[in-house]
Amino acid sequence: MQVDEQRFLADLHRLRSFGASGVGKGVVRPAYSAADVAARTWLAQRISAAGLVPHFDPLGNLFGLAEGRSLLVGSHSDSQPEGGWLDGALGVIAGLEIARAARAAGGPAVSVVSFQDEEGRFGVTTGSEVWSGKTSLKEADQFIDNTGTTMAQARGVLADVAQDFLPHDRFSGFVEMHIEQGPALDQSGEKIGVVTDIVGIRDMRITLDGQQNHAGTTPMAVRQDAFQALATFNMELARRFANVVTPATVWTIGHVSLHPNAASIVPGRVRFSMQWRDGDLDRLTRMEQIILELAKEIGQRHSVTVSLGPVMGIDPKPMDVNIQAALAVAATDLAPGVWRNMTSGALHDAANMASVMPVGMLFVPSINGISHAFDEDTDEADLVLGLRVLARAVQALA
Amino acid sequence: MQVDEQRFLADLHRLRSFGASGVGKGVVRPAYSAADVAARTWLAQRISAAGLVPHFDPLGNLFGLAEGRSLLVGSHSDSQPEGGWLDGALGVIAGLEIARAARAAGGPAVSVVSFQDEEGRFGVTTGSEVWSGKTSLKEADQFIDNTGTTMAQARGVLADVAQDFLPHDRFSGFVEMHIEQGPALDQSGEKIGVVTDIVGIRDMRITLDGQQNHAGTTPMAVRQDAFQALATFNMELARRFANVVTPATVWTIGHVSLHPNAASIVPGRVRFSMQWRDGDLDRLTRMEQIILELAKEIGQRHSVTVSLGPVMGIDPKPMDVNIQAALAVAATDLAPGVWRNMTSGALHDAANMASVMPVGMLFVPSINGISHAFDEDTDEADLVLGLRVLARAVQALA
Repeated sequence: MQVDEQRFLADLHRLRSFGASGVGKGVVRPAYSAADVAARTWLAQRISAAGLVPHFDPLGNLFGLAEGRSLLVGSHSDSQPEGGWLDGALGVIAGLEIARAARAAGGPAVSVVSFQDEEGRFGVTTGSEVWSGKTSLKEADQFIDNTGTTMAQARGVLADVAQDFLPHDRFSGFVEMHIEQGPALDQSGEKIGVVTDIVGIRDMRITLDGQQNHAGTTPMAVRQDAFQALATFNMELARRFANVVTPATVWTIGHVSLHPNAASIVPGRVRFSMQWRDGDLDRLTRMEQIILELAKEIGQRHSVTVSLGPVMGIDPKPMDVNIQAALAVAATDLAPGVWRNMTSGALHDAANMASVMPVGMLFVPSINGISHAFDEDTDEADLVLGLRVLARAVQALA
Repeated sequence: MQVDEQRFLADLHRLRSFGASGVGKGVVRPAYSAADVAARTWLAQRISAAGLVPHFDPLGNLFGLAEGRSLLVGSHSDSQPEGGWLDGALGVIAGLEIARAARAAGGPAVSVVSFQDEEGRFGVTTGSEVWSGKTSLKEADQFIDNTGTTMAQARGVLADVAQDFLPHDRFSGFVEMHIEQGPALDQSGEKIGVVTDIVGIRDMRITLDGQQNHAGTTPMAVRQDAFQALATFNMELARRFANVVTPATVWTIGHVSLHPNAASIVPGRVRFSMQWRDGDLDRLTRMEQIILELAKEIGQRHSVTVSLGPVMGIDPKPMDVNIQAALAVAATDLAPGVWRNMTSGALHDAANMASVMPVGMLFVPSINGISHAFDEDTDEADLVLGLRVLARAVQALA
């Protein structure tokens, strides 16, 4: 089969026009937003135009199906609230290009997929997580985003096109191409990363309820200030993690919602996100224990009520050795001396797929390692090289 | 003159219906909101019905004018984003009742006022601050609220009724009745507080700009996390203040706005409010110096850019001795053994008025010291006693 690099780049830029931020090449295309639905509608048209069969499942995961059993190639087309143009989109359009090139060549049988809510508006990689069976649709429907909308309400916008979930055994494996989203390849000047495993992630919401009061007449000694409780939690957490983590471990408080959030009021409540990632399952669990114990202590020390949301996430996942080998051979042929094996510090849909079929991943460089931001970017020559390596590996796997 | 206690309570409850939160007796009536404008329109009608002349100035400060030179009695009718029913409203309706009782009795000449934006949607006690001349209308028009709206845009909703600013010498003094908003009277079982002075307040907005990035692939060591910078600032500030403050000093970070505020993204920017209060002008200044120095240090330590907004606020203000004496005499007559002199830890419009005319303040208890919250409340018998003490003092001052 022969991939069309210009058609690949043209579709990649066309997808960027859905939810274009107007800042650099950035996009605002969260799961189930008008821009996300418009992008998926366009993708379904491109899938049909390629002679593949579009199929939305109940969550809005969009497949472009080849006949019979096939290799699945893709990623996700939803974005962060302020996302880059390549995060997910690259893997979807690469999958589309390879699937239509394979069909035009009379084989091998390749299908494409764009998973829904990989960026976690509701959970963590929600679309692939539910399809993989890790979470039931019933459970996922009760997930709530930061605005109080439920997953059940949000996915209603795709209800009229939704069909059943597809059986996993319709696919022989899943291969995902993605930007690295980190600085490793960019700093070393390498062009291709063959992923050996994906780190695990844990994600939860914590609410601290204190006493909202007047910021002038409430003595410091008697305050039940929810923000002060959070600040103490944050500082003490770093101290306790120090004995447990490695330089590769990361943790983040990325969402903070103060209530009532006014300058003259002692904050009565704060809701915040607590996320941590590591390649070692035991370490993830030890960190979780520290978080839960510390939250309880802070509740007593600051006289705030602690409410812990469910701990969501995905365990560390190794990639399939045969797919790794096929990607390594293709990289050696097409990018000799400028590729490496590496661990993924970012979570991907492949981590969910690993529990139901063989999976593999291919990385291309991120300029300055920047991602989850409007200025995320990659040299187009690197995008095309990644596409060619992926196509070669897919051919070999067939 | 004879005040009508039932009419006073009835109007106080009627005012509560504008922006009623539906939670307890709470109200949501921020400056220039639809509820605030409706409440001021109703107040103007009540003023006319009492034979007084309603007068809106360019900011929406609403006066009910007696003929000739008069004593001004009032407070504010705007509320916090989540406010109690008495904060400001009590002083306005008490002023209305006394002004109309005085007019019905043929004197003394008493006018009423409801100042605008006392709660600081834009600045700090903005309406009385501008009328007092401390800040020009031109400056105030450039103030921006947390949603990015300018004062100039907001006050447009009252433009059709706005007249000129009134000359200060039309008034012989200003007396404000208010709930204490603190626990002192409630805990001691006392019913009346005669205010001797009002603490000073400083209020500013600080923005920290770091680098928004992926929460999985960005090593902790290279992050420029705006929330971590804020948390360190907050903790270090408490340490440095320890050598400067007294048990009566307070400081608050009540508003925090993270950007982009998503669980999987290292926060690139945070905008937060920094407010501090004390009765000593030198201490307020020493605290300001600590804040500015620390912010600069944090900027360097966390590789974040620090943007400091203007430092707004009001200096500590003593109350007029003659008005204090009149209130003390009235309290001794009507609340023997259950009143006290006290400092106001909360800022009030009286602090601005003190720079242009003699001012005095009267406090009644706050149940459990709670204010700036929906569950703020005061026993109605205490409200009525406060009204009677205020009326007696006004009579004596005439």
